[in-house]
Amino acid sequence: MTTNELISEIKKKQSFLCIGLDVDLNKIPKHLLEKDDPIFAFNKAIIDATHHLCVAYKPNTAFYEAYGLKGWKSLKKTIDYINTNYPEIFTIADAKRGDIGNTSSMYAKAFFEDLNFDSITVAPYMGKDSVEPFLAFKNKHTILLALTSNQGAFDFQTLNVKGQDLYKQVLETSTTWENSKNLMYVVGATKAEFLTDIRKIIPHNFLLVPGIGAQGGNLQDVCKYGMNDSVGLLINSSRGIIYASNKEDFAEAAATKAKELQDQMSIILNK
Amino acid sequence: MTTNELISEIKKKQSFLCIGLDVDLNKIPKHLLEKDDPIFAFNKAIIDATHHLCVAYKPNTAFYEAYGLKGWKSLKKTIDYINTNYPEIFTIADAKRGDIGNTSSMYAKAFFEDLNFDSITVAPYMGKDSVEPFLAFKNKHTILLALTSNQGAFDFQTLNVKGQDLYKQVLETSTTWENSKNLMYVVGATKAEFLTDIRKIIPHNFLLVPGIGAQGGNLQDVCKYGMNDSVGLLINSSRGIIYASNKEDFAEAAATKAKELQDQMSIILNK
Repeated sequence: MTTNELISEIKKKQSFLCIGLDVDLNKIPKHLLEKDDPIFAFNKAIIDATHHLCVAYKPNTAFYEAYGLKGWKSLKKTIDYINTNYPEIFTIADAKRGDIGNTSSMYAKAFFEDLNFDSITVAPYMGKDSVEPFLAFKNKHTILLALTSNQGAFDFQTLNVKGQDLYKQVLETSTTWENSKNLMYVVGATKAEFLTDIRKIIPHNFLLVPGIGAQGGNLQDVCKYGMNDSVGLLINSSRGIIYASNKEDFAEAAATKAKELQDQMSIILNK
Repeated sequence: MTTNELISEIKKKQSFLCIGLDVDLNKIPKHLLEKDDPIFAFNKAIIDATHHLCVAYKPNTAFYEAYGLKGWKSLKKTIDYINTNYPEIFTIADAKRGDIGNTSSMYAKAFFEDLNFDSITVAPYMGKDSVEPFLAFKNKHTILLALTSNQGAFDFQTLNVKGQDLYKQVLETSTTWENSKNLMYVVGATKAEFLTDIRKIIPHNFLLVPGIGAQGGNLQDVCKYGMNDSVGLLINSSRGIIYASNKEDFAEAAATKAKELQDQMSIILNK
């Protein structure tokens, strides 16, 4: 998917909501556990109930790998289901990969070709040649970790290098990489006040913002400081939406929560 | 596996060699492509021919994920084969994972429980709460990226923070984390001269050293600067061993290359 197609979907749906599909078998409704593939059954119901309210889905690979082969199969079925039934949706493999060049190429093949995701999250620690293999794919997007939403973000990401925080150095350096127009960035909603400075370095790129809801981030603040002329934001909520209920009405409850966010987004977009 | 068990295997086998199982279907002998599971067939032959010459195997997950479900199945068969037939071998999932706390727990479950690896490589960028969930597992080892073997290592890892290189800050900070005794570190062989300083910060931990062979690192230099009282080194070679031949004799050719390294290691251990 191109960035322009994503922007046009945002305007059409009046939403820049991304729903995180982080499925934990201990948290889903009990009746689903009798199904052949409970993870996929859960995802399918959530997707069918919310696809008109969001523009992106983001399965976190950890939640699938934890269930081994079965989990990987559920991930494959989930992405295939989205691509077949809702091809207008932007898909994010939240995989946080990154390795030396020839290895990153294999990860890019895994997520862009075999699974056919539109984008993948990538860690910056190993530098340019660990990220450029992802950037080489046309109409695919590489979402680089910049400032994450967890407490550990302050261990290294905010250390001072060359007179500024490390994460700003990551942003700056990454803009010099080949095909850097294919970059988006992860910036945690729990640190909305940092967004003003971030936008000075990368005014045009999309930001994937986790941490709304369960992690305590605030939608209005994120939009105030992080939005640009072409919206430039994908706001992710995972647990707050998909675990809104753990009873038979879980999909409707998820849709209700997603609608609440989409309503707020619509107001913001029309300001 | 405990660290003491690993050290005792090193002494018994007179080897601290780790063999990287990075299987690329474009590089393996053509006759294997007719097999049901060419990746597993290749790994099995390599493992049977080299298990007495090395103490560790390190499959890089990218090379399995690139082949989708089939690849994940080959990875599972490979680790199961090693654990069943050569339980004395230390196994490393070269996965370079790392995410917010509850997600890292899922990765830890995936690699320590479902696949039953002894260890996993983890990226440090997201800090303490992204690594500690791995460290919580008893007799499992977390191999933190410190100074990697690629050119991109110089993009961020060697930036000056608090008067020293970032990777040294990563080493220092990580020693304060809970269960930090379960930490090992990745330090590229292409930067052997850095090992003296590294050993001042982490005198006791094991180092996983990639970059010998195809990437140009030198075994003697690494041992000179990096070895400690309990050896403290796992030297990895991937392509230099597993692709020594792409004909029917590939497994013997791999054993010959592994024996060359093991011979050198034996001399170093007996100095």
